Amino acid sequence: MNLILIEPSLSLSEGRYALTERQQSHINHVIKATSGDILRVGLLGGNLGEGVFQTASADLPAHIHSLQLTQTPPKALPIVLVMALPRPNMLKRTLHNITAMGVKELYLIHSAKVEKSYWQSPVLQPESIHQTLLEGLEQAKDTIIPNYTMVPRFRPFVEDQLPDILRGKLGLLAHPYQAKACPIDLQEPCVLALGPEGGWNEFEVTKWLEAGMSSVHLGDRILKVETVVPVLLSRLYPA
Amino acid sequence: MNLILIEPSLSLSEGRYALTERQQSHINHVIKATSGDILRVGLLGGNLGEGVFQTASADLPAHIHSLQLTQTPPKALPIVLVMALPRPNMLKRTLHNITAMGVKELYLIHSAKVEKSYWQSPVLQPESIHQTLLEGLEQAKDTIIPNYTMVPRFRPFVEDQLPDILRGKLGLLAHPYQAKACPIDLQEPCVLALGPEGGWNEFEVTKWLEAGMSSVHLGDRILKVETVVPVLLSRLYPA
Repeated sequence: MNLILIEPSLSLSEGRYALTERQQSHINHVIKATSGDILRVGLLGGNLGEGVFQTASADLPAHIHSLQLTQTPPKALPIVLVMALPRPNMLKRTLHNITAMGVKELYLIHSAKVEKSYWQSPVLQPESIHQTLLEGLEQAKDTIIPNYTMVPRFRPFVEDQLPDILRGKLGLLAHPYQAKACPIDLQEPCVLALGPEGGWNEFEVTKWLEAGMSSVHLGDRILKVETVVPVLLSRLYPA
Repeated sequence: MNLILIEPSLSLSEGRYALTERQQSHINHVIKATSGDILRVGLLGGNLGEGVFQTASADLPAHIHSLQLTQTPPKALPIVLVMALPRPNMLKRTLHNITAMGVKELYLIHSAKVEKSYWQSPVLQPESIHQTLLEGLEQAKDTIIPNYTMVPRFRPFVEDQLPDILRGKLGLLAHPYQAKACPIDLQEPCVLALGPEGGWNEFEVTKWLEAGMSSVHLGDRILKVETVVPVLLSRLYPA
């Protein structure tokens, strides 16, 4: 936990914010802070800075008060990531990494090679995803939570929603055939479409290209999904 | 298993190479090949191409023969990676990713913030490491196995070995303080030193800088080790 991320919904009176159990445990056992100690905090949806810790009393739960939030969060990546739904045991790690790297707009989309059972997985419960996104923010010391949208049907998304999403942005389809090399250090916003482990099928590729996306590849090496996401994001927006 | 990686040490007579149990299992259950089928193979230390599969008989074990190896392996990254020994449950994944991305020279080094117990872990057994490196090569469709060296003592390495390693290369110390931004798309070879989760200590930083390394940072976001390695490698050598 690199950052105590204060949730506005846990506001008590007079500028005090209650801490979650996870945070209290970290503060007690790792930071080992006591009342009056200054901690590095960030307000979810706001800035970062410092706050004063207060242990629980008869009247109030453990909380942070006297926030001084002078530091803006790290820069967001100018990318809309449209990603075929990963397998359940990869989803948590993938969402964490995507969040930690600064993606703010995410669509999790169905593809022919995504097993239907993945959409029933408990890891897709909103509470579970929300918790994973918060942990990604804590890791990277960021306060702006990504928006994510579930897209269980491929075709209506690509036909009806993608044109608006794509307007004013470069459209990149990660697809190794008849592709140019993925751009390095892109100086404009983009939409990046990442397929499932088996790749997009022919129909899907046709729809992406029809919508105005261009195929890009990452070279000869085949990387695992958990590696390809940081590599692509770092290549497109290194700084 | 994206590639059947043939080990020269398993050579039978007349251009035949025995397959490991893992490979036989993959060929039987995933590829579902039968005798005479052509498979994509690579020779460890050599080129990639095709070979003909033959199931086990009374005389010979399951093997590949009639190799046609016309494709050179993917480009190596011009980097020497010196990395503080990761915690045991991260080591396998880290070695796999490093190998898949094309690192060929690796030093695993002690640091003050590396727990001594990590050096006793069974994951450091040569057989275990060798297997992990092979799996990284299979993932990326590469045939050139990285060299790795264990460096249980920091100081003799930095004082006695590093000057030779560093000659003719740019020395980069991943260290967030008083650092410049990590270069993008480096056009020369480098030595990259990656510290443990808690960072290098003051003494270690001094020794690195004395040896001619320069501090570089990756920006405001703190990433997990498993993410920072692909991000750094992709930033330094994107293409």
